[in-house]
Amino acid sequence: MKMINGGICAAKGFTASGVHCGIRHNKIKKDLSLIYSEVPAAAAAVYTTNLVKGAPLTVTKDHLADGYAQAVICNSGNANTCNSNGIEIAEQTCSLIAAELGIKADDIVVASTGVIGQKMSIEPFEKGVKPLVNALSKNGCDDAAEGIMTTDTVKKEVAVEFEIDGKICTIGGIAKGSGMIHPNMATMLVFITSDVNISPEMLQSALSSDIQNTFNMLSIDGDTSTNDMVTVLANGLANNKKITEKGDDFKIFMTALNTVTVTLCRMIAGDGEGATKLLECSVSGAKTLCDAKTVAKSVVCSSLLKAAMFGADANWGRVLCAIGYSGADVDVNKIDVYFESKAGKIKVCEKGAGVDFSEDEAKKILTENEIDIIVDLNDGDFSSKAWGCDLTYDYVKINGDYRT
Amino acid sequence: MKMINGGICAAKGFTASGVHCGIRHNKIKKDLSLIYSEVPAAAAAVYTTNLVKGAPLTVTKDHLADGYAQAVICNSGNANTCNSNGIEIAEQTCSLIAAELGIKADDIVVASTGVIGQKMSIEPFEKGVKPLVNALSKNGCDDAAEGIMTTDTVKKEVAVEFEIDGKICTIGGIAKGSGMIHPNMATMLVFITSDVNISPEMLQSALSSDIQNTFNMLSIDGDTSTNDMVTVLANGLANNKKITEKGDDFKIFMTALNTVTVTLCRMIAGDGEGATKLLECSVSGAKTLCDAKTVAKSVVCSSLLKAAMFGADANWGRVLCAIGYSGADVDVNKIDVYFESKAGKIKVCEKGAGVDFSEDEAKKILTENEIDIIVDLNDGDFSSKAWGCDLTYDYVKINGDYRT
Repeated sequence: MKMINGGICAAKGFTASGVHCGIRHNKIKKDLSLIYSEVPAAAAAVYTTNLVKGAPLTVTKDHLADGYAQAVICNSGNANTCNSNGIEIAEQTCSLIAAELGIKADDIVVASTGVIGQKMSIEPFEKGVKPLVNALSKNGCDDAAEGIMTTDTVKKEVAVEFEIDGKICTIGGIAKGSGMIHPNMATMLVFITSDVNISPEMLQSALSSDIQNTFNMLSIDGDTSTNDMVTVLANGLANNKKITEKGDDFKIFMTALNTVTVTLCRMIAGDGEGATKLLECSVSGAKTLCDAKTVAKSVVCSSLLKAAMFGADANWGRVLCAIGYSGADVDVNKIDVYFESKAGKIKVCEKGAGVDFSEDEAKKILTENEIDIIVDLNDGDFSSKAWGCDLTYDYVKINGDYRT
Repeated sequence: MKMINGGICAAKGFTASGVHCGIRHNKIKKDLSLIYSEVPAAAAAVYTTNLVKGAPLTVTKDHLADGYAQAVICNSGNANTCNSNGIEIAEQTCSLIAAELGIKADDIVVASTGVIGQKMSIEPFEKGVKPLVNALSKNGCDDAAEGIMTTDTVKKEVAVEFEIDGKICTIGGIAKGSGMIHPNMATMLVFITSDVNISPEMLQSALSSDIQNTFNMLSIDGDTSTNDMVTVLANGLANNKKITEKGDDFKIFMTALNTVTVTLCRMIAGDGEGATKLLECSVSGAKTLCDAKTVAKSVVCSSLLKAAMFGADANWGRVLCAIGYSGADVDVNKIDVYFESKAGKIKVCEKGAGVDFSEDEAKKILTENEIDIIVDLNDGDFSSKAWGCDLTYDYVKINGDYRT
């Protein structure tokens, strides 16, 4: 398997585009994105568990009921959530883009991201769909990745190439963060494209299984968004023997998908709102997988630890504290903790108590922008990883006045 | 019932003191506090649910096994947690102060607050106990309240006077916040004194019941501390007929206790780390008490809403979002939301969707330093309140480099 360029346009038959249609006041920032497959594609999706759901999610669920889709349209700048006419807007959006593309409205995945509870009008979409379709191109991934950004500071795109059944296959993805992100749902917006030939059922099975260890192990701020979804379209143009059951081909697909999703997870965490550092918590030695995940998530979610990481302060007591209140079944007196980055690795806690370490060395390690917090529970065989970011002045700044 | 001065020294027979003994480098800040009852008192306590527990909690639990205590000693600057010699230090502390006071070591409540996992020495205590006992006075509440402070910016003390059985009774308390505070345990350090005559069993019952609606409904940052406890000593010197069962006298005691604990909760929330505003979330119309509490806690815990409140931004979508992911059983389409402060009250959401409101008026309301977020679920008869604070630059600053 190898990483390649092209993002969501890397797979055969996919083009994309992004334009400014006027949902945002800032005319420099694109606010409407389109992904298009030249043939209908098997489609799978996972959605936020928040009871307050964006209208586009309801419409998308309906459209994916048959397991197929051909295009994704997504706007930023308004979440189309808690609006009395939200469903209507989402459905009209699908009709407009379907007519322009010459495909069926119920083959459209529709998504929105931005402020919740803001009135929304169909006008920017009416204006935007024609230039959006005209702009579709094999080089359109960058524009599409920009059009879905909210407080993100960098575009998030990835693609991998691999082989199934002697055929070259591709999976690519784009994502947008970067706040209101928390485990236990399909977090954020992620759109993945592939030319692999796979049944809708196996595609859904792959996605639902993968997110348990990827997007559901990612937290920026503990807030589970109303509009999150992850979708995969797989149009079959790689021409491999169709994957319709578990087996070696499915395993290869899962591995490639996981490479894409982990890469996007790390990109989203590293670009969390206001973040200066990507935090990864690697837990091993847990009694059960559930304990391993619970500990990893609790550590990356701790506001106190996140603030300490911002200050490059090796305050490992906060790691122990977060493990202690996580609810996981652990023996505190067996826990070892290390901090690691490309500047080195340092043990800070052994058997639940402090060990002497060089504060200078710790500072050097924690000043890097990717920090691994390594927790060995020394009490079993299960391990897990979770991703997050530090808590900074800029998180407060960004969220203190987001709407205006 | 009336509010009176004197804090923990207001009740008959209680004196207190606070000194600098050298646990902290900063010589201006007191770091050791003592509360003393001239006669043994019925004692009750609740403790953190964190599996990582400070050594003093273990020692205190042992000492309170018989239901009685006569003094409380508490240091700040070091949590005496995750130390190999923690129990030894806590026990030695009790022996030192007991000898100086001429009472039994197992009648001492011992507590510590500060950095976790820092080595601790008995020397500052050896030096401090004599001046601490010498300083005991009826005017010592201020000094004791200062000695337990960590990142708190203001001392937290309160006292109320009321009547039971024709006798004047008093309850007073001091508390320290102001980070690592989260629902579902006995949060923070709170020491309450009373001259009411009550059995240890009824005292414990009153405390355990009260905290469900007070300290367990308070969150600063989602981090459940390792060292939290709330203790009450009641020495009986008010000379009322001893409360040994439920009834009118017990009800009066509960009401007075609740006045003290709610006041301390609001003080702790308003002085949360970096906080500029006290947030109170008042939920009504819930199907069950559990739903009401779950919603109230979820709202005051949302980092996004806390940041919006700091910016006086009426971003009510974040309230809906936090209700939606809380796990409570709610009908989103019935929810009304208001913001209220002494500058006025404004409806921002009706039946789960936005209503037109004046942004200027909302700004004026949210610029005050005590904000009530009112949520009517319109779906039942249960209500609840939770307390928290805004998320600010200073929270990040304080916690980015707490140890150094």
